[in-house]
Amino acid sequence: MSARGPRGGNRRGRGAGKGHRRVPGGPPGDRPGRRQRAGLGGDRVEGRQAVRELLLAGTRPVREVVIAAGQNQTGALAQVAELAAELRVPVKEVARSKFESMAVTEAPQGVIARAAPLAEHDLEELAHPADGRPPFLLVLDGVTDPGNVGAALRTAECAGVTGAVLGRHRSAHITPAAAKAAAGAIEHLPMAVVPGVPGALARLAGLGVWTVGLDVAAPATVYEMGVAAEAVALVVGSEGRGLSRLSRQRCDVVAAIPLSGRLSSLNAAAAVAVGCFEIARHRPPARSEGP
Amino acid sequence: MSARGPRGGNRRGRGAGKGHRRVPGGPPGDRPGRRQRAGLGGDRVEGRQAVRELLLAGTRPVREVVIAAGQNQTGALAQVAELAAELRVPVKEVARSKFESMAVTEAPQGVIARAAPLAEHDLEELAHPADGRPPFLLVLDGVTDPGNVGAALRTAECAGVTGAVLGRHRSAHITPAAAKAAAGAIEHLPMAVVPGVPGALARLAGLGVWTVGLDVAAPATVYEMGVAAEAVALVVGSEGRGLSRLSRQRCDVVAAIPLSGRLSSLNAAAAVAVGCFEIARHRPPARSEGP
Repeated sequence: MSARGPRGGNRRGRGAGKGHRRVPGGPPGDRPGRRQRAGLGGDRVEGRQAVRELLLAGTRPVREVVIAAGQNQTGALAQVAELAAELRVPVKEVARSKFESMAVTEAPQGVIARAAPLAEHDLEELAHPADGRPPFLLVLDGVTDPGNVGAALRTAECAGVTGAVLGRHRSAHITPAAAKAAAGAIEHLPMAVVPGVPGALARLAGLGVWTVGLDVAAPATVYEMGVAAEAVALVVGSEGRGLSRLSRQRCDVVAAIPLSGRLSSLNAAAAVAVGCFEIARHRPPARSEGP
Repeated sequence: MSARGPRGGNRRGRGAGKGHRRVPGGPPGDRPGRRQRAGLGGDRVEGRQAVRELLLAGTRPVREVVIAAGQNQTGALAQVAELAAELRVPVKEVARSKFESMAVTEAPQGVIARAAPLAEHDLEELAHPADGRPPFLLVLDGVTDPGNVGAALRTAECAGVTGAVLGRHRSAHITPAAAKAAAGAIEHLPMAVVPGVPGALARLAGLGVWTVGLDVAAPATVYEMGVAAEAVALVVGSEGRGLSRLSRQRCDVVAAIPLSGRLSSLNAAAAVAVGCFEIARHRPPARSEGP
């Protein structure tokens, strides 16, 4: 099967790289097409791995790092301190009690960063990844739990997903808890926020991207979806409701992850893991170096 | 390849079904070989799905259900109330403030149950699933975060895993947070708690079970493990450290989930999802009915 429609025009512009810090060896910061719009969030990042990846990625300005006093600065925390110094990001050490009052996630692991909000991208941008390969997108349809959103983005990034689409109304934006669970994936994964997922699926179809919805009741399985190696978007619904009726109708392919136990559903982040890696299995690896 | 060692003797005994409530249509409650030992926990279950599955499964006595007052009793909560009435489990409705002071998990969703602790199983029992099929086990090596343990068990159950092995020292037992994230999987998945994972891997090998460790640095991938359709145990290490050195040495096969992004590791629960469903893909489906 081949993608259907003609590709949309290249609408990438030059985003402002203002105030941007580059990390040597890291990805370039001022990616084409990045624009600041309201709604995606991500300006507060808590947790060692998430803050380390924020600093390492160098894709957006970091205003400040706050570290709780009295911690052994080893491992990821030591890396955070080193990277912040290297990038001349102000580091504030505060008493543990003050830190706890500042943190908003469950387990901030003694470190908080404040950064510029994440840049939003267009669907057209997501349909044309910078490296020229066919897009591999993840669309979250009504997944609202921040931990699930973050975990889904992390797993997707590891599977080689090139962009993510979040619904503006029903899906969570990138809250601190989502940023923490994403463990840095939000720094690397271009994201689009759309007013409605069904409309976005129609637009992706027009951009030549196959849309594959996960649905436990589908007669076909994800192992026979057939379009995994092409321009493809995996559409995952919320745990309780699954895909919305309209989203399901708009998908080119609807496929089930076969369940063999007694429970009736996978957690949304687990469904993303199985679906994304099943697609990844059919695509050439993106990087040749080791893990 | 075939499993190596002779199978261990059948050491199943008859467990006490005392006080056990059966649910019509549910699995039999007094499974052979169930013994009460200290350590596995699971006696407190919070969250709508987890409590509903506890009542539906009927595999252990439920002492009490506590519901926060003032909730719309629809969906899973209505089912909880119906099942509790049917099983003559006492239901206590308490004021919201009292409920909050009783709950120990983040989001108990207005319902708590107290049940008999989970029964522990022997490795020998896990190596011989009741339905006579080759065992498909999950071994958690140092995964301590309760949310990750619970999520891993839930996904494993959905993939058709027939039993789970947890290390006594380094892995979390079934805390309320683990029980909630497991969403009922702990009611269906026989579990063994072992003093050390490397020793358990050696015993599983002696019982004819292939052990496959996940290791991001392994030269082979999970897509070429070769033993997925046989008696097999997937061994997953902690997120930070991965498999312990000894566990890695004891595994028959070490395999990587190929990563295609910039992040260096998957969350442990996501690795379980990818690994378990990759194994499940090679095994005959356990149930013929729809999802």
